[in-house]
Amino acid sequence: MLHSPTQTDAIIIGAGPVGLFQVFELGLLEIKAHVIDALPEAGGQCIELYPDKPIYDIPAIPVCTGRELTENLLKQIKPFGAQFHLGQEVTQLEKQADGRFLISTSKDQHFLSKTVFIAGGVGAFQPRTLNLDGIEAYVGKQIFYSVKNPEQFTGKKIVICGGGDTALDWALHFVGKAASITLIHRRDDFKAAPASITKMRELCKNKQIQLLIGQITHYEVEHDQISKIIVTDIESKDHQILVDDLLIFFGLSPKLGPIADWGLDIERKQVSVDTEKFQTSIPGIYAVGDINIYPGKKKLILSGFHEAALAAFAAAAYLNPEKHIQLQYTTTSTKLHQVLGVSSPTFE
Amino acid sequence: MLHSPTQTDAIIIGAGPVGLFQVFELGLLEIKAHVIDALPEAGGQCIELYPDKPIYDIPAIPVCTGRELTENLLKQIKPFGAQFHLGQEVTQLEKQADGRFLISTSKDQHFLSKTVFIAGGVGAFQPRTLNLDGIEAYVGKQIFYSVKNPEQFTGKKIVICGGGDTALDWALHFVGKAASITLIHRRDDFKAAPASITKMRELCKNKQIQLLIGQITHYEVEHDQISKIIVTDIESKDHQILVDDLLIFFGLSPKLGPIADWGLDIERKQVSVDTEKFQTSIPGIYAVGDINIYPGKKKLILSGFHEAALAAFAAAAYLNPEKHIQLQYTTTSTKLHQVLGVSSPTFE
Repeated sequence: MLHSPTQTDAIIIGAGPVGLFQVFELGLLEIKAHVIDALPEAGGQCIELYPDKPIYDIPAIPVCTGRELTENLLKQIKPFGAQFHLGQEVTQLEKQADGRFLISTSKDQHFLSKTVFIAGGVGAFQPRTLNLDGIEAYVGKQIFYSVKNPEQFTGKKIVICGGGDTALDWALHFVGKAASITLIHRRDDFKAAPASITKMRELCKNKQIQLLIGQITHYEVEHDQISKIIVTDIESKDHQILVDDLLIFFGLSPKLGPIADWGLDIERKQVSVDTEKFQTSIPGIYAVGDINIYPGKKKLILSGFHEAALAAFAAAAYLNPEKHIQLQYTTTSTKLHQVLGVSSPTFE
Repeated sequence: MLHSPTQTDAIIIGAGPVGLFQVFELGLLEIKAHVIDALPEAGGQCIELYPDKPIYDIPAIPVCTGRELTENLLKQIKPFGAQFHLGQEVTQLEKQADGRFLISTSKDQHFLSKTVFIAGGVGAFQPRTLNLDGIEAYVGKQIFYSVKNPEQFTGKKIVICGGGDTALDWALHFVGKAASITLIHRRDDFKAAPASITKMRELCKNKQIQLLIGQITHYEVEHDQISKIIVTDIESKDHQILVDDLLIFFGLSPKLGPIADWGLDIERKQVSVDTEKFQTSIPGIYAVGDINIYPGKKKLILSGFHEAALAAFAAAAYLNPEKHIQLQYTTTSTKLHQVLGVSSPTFE
C-alpha cells in the first residue's frame, strides 16, 4: 500500500560531492531539498572509492582526501537542513498529471517533488565480475570483489586478479600472512603506483608472490568448494593453481540502473543536458556531475559544482516563473547571510 | 624600441581567483603560463574589494576571506612556477602572421604567446566619480575615492557620500576623530549592514553625524580650495556645508579597457564565449570568469573555475591538434602526481 508521499520542491538523487553542493545552491535560493542515495553514507565515489586518498584539483584546496571533501561539504550545507534518505535506491520516477514527479525508493519511501536533480555520479558502482560459468554461487564465500575483513585470508592460499593499485596493494599486504599469493593479470603491464610495482617484482623474485600473466579460464570444485583454478597464459599454456580464496579487482563498472527507464534522453550511458540550465529532456529534471553529458563535458568535481549552481537558478525560475531571481553574493548580501545563519559583518 | 618578446604557450590576463586557477588547470596539462595583472598583487577583486570579508559559496570551503582564497590558490599553483607580471595593464594584443599573439603591457613588456586567457574579472575597477564641473582638479587633494591613510582626516570637517557599507563604515569610524561628519546619500535607504545603519541613525540623533538626503549640486572654492558644498535635498531645498575633505563612495564601476579594442565579439561589455571551450570569437583566445558571457552565465567564482578547466583542455587540443588529451584524475594519475610534485601513494 502506498504511504502518503512526502511533498517537496526538490529531490536530489545522489549524495556525492555534487549532490551535496546542489543542496547548498538550492539553499541559497531558499529551496529545501531531500537527498536520496543508495550508499549508507554521504560522499558518493569520494567515500566509496578513495576516502583516504589525496585529491589535488578542488579549487583553492591544495590537497584534501575524499572524506575531508565530504565533511567540508556537509558542514557547508548544514544551515539548509536537507533531509537525507540513505541506503536506498530510487527505483521509480513518474510524472504526475499536475506536473510533479512521484519518486519511489527501494525502502518503499515515496516523494512528490516539483523538481528533481539527478546527481547520481556515473550511476551505482558495481565491481566488474569474473565471468566463469556458475561462479556466482561462490561470491562472498571464496570469490571476493572487496576486502572487508583482511584477517579471514590469513594462512589461506589466495589468488589475486587485477593490475591496478587495489590488486597490488592487497598482494603486497598479504605477503607473510597468506599461505601463498598468486597474482594474475592479463598482461605484463600494471597501472598501479610505480613503487608498488617495483616492490611486487622484488617479491616475485624472492618467490613470495607468484606472478602469472594470463586469464582464469576454468575452475574445479571439490566438496562444494573451488579447489583449483586453471590459468591460460598468453602462449595458451595452462597452469593449475590450488586455491582457497580469490580476490578479484577488475575495477568498478558504473551502472545507470533505473535512471535509464525514466524517458530521459541518454547518450553513451549519460543523461543529456543543456549548458544553460543543466536540464534534461524533461523540464523540471536536471542532471549534474558525472552523470550528465554535453559538448566539452569533463568528469571533474569542480564542473559538477558549476552545474549545480546553474541548475539551482534554473529550478528557481521553473518553480517561480513570475519571480525575478537576482544573483546575490554571499560576501555582501544581508539576505544570504540570514539564509546561511551567519551574522552580517558589522562595524567594529 | 621593442625588446625581444618573451615567447610562451599561454598568457593569462588577470591574477584574480579564476586567473590563478587557470594556471593550475594549464599546469596539469603541462602548459606553462605567464600571468599579467594591473594590480600590484595577485587576488583580483577578492583582494581589492573584500580581502577580509567572509565568502561562503566556494565549494567545500564553508567560509574563507578573499585573502585566504587567494593564498590557497597561490599555494595550489606553486608547483607550476607561473611567472607573474604585476602592476601592469595589457595595452595591446595583435595577432601575428604565424598565428601567435603579440601582447604589450603598460610597463613595456612584450610577449609572443600561442594562446591567451582573458581572466580580467569585470575589467579594471574604477570608483564611480562625483560629476561636478572642474572637480577632477581636487581628486587626491580634497576629493577621495578611497581611504589610504585615515589619520589625515583627523580634526577635519568631512563629508561622506554614499549609502553602502564603505560609506557607513567610514562615517562610523570617524566619529570622535573628525571635526564634523556629514553623510550624504541620494535617498533615505541604505544598503549597508543593518547593524551599521542602526548605529549611524543613533549617532545622527546624538548629532555626532549629520545626515542629509540629497545630492551635491555645487561647490565653492576659496584660495584654490573647496570650502563649501551645496546639497540639494529631495524637496529641492539647498543646504550649504563647510567642508575640508570629501570622501566619495559611489561604488566601483568596471571598465573593460583595452580589451574592447582587440576585435573580440563583445556583448553587454562582456566577452562572448561558447560553453564547450570558453573560446572567444578569435581561436586561441579564451575568456573565463566574470568577463565572459554565455547563455546561463552567473558571475560566480566557482563557475570561473569550471570555465578555466574546460578552456585548458581546449587550449591543449589547440596547441597539439594531433595529440589525444586524456582526462586524468589527480587522485589516481601517477603522471599528474609528477606534474604536481607530490609522491604517488605507496604501499605502507
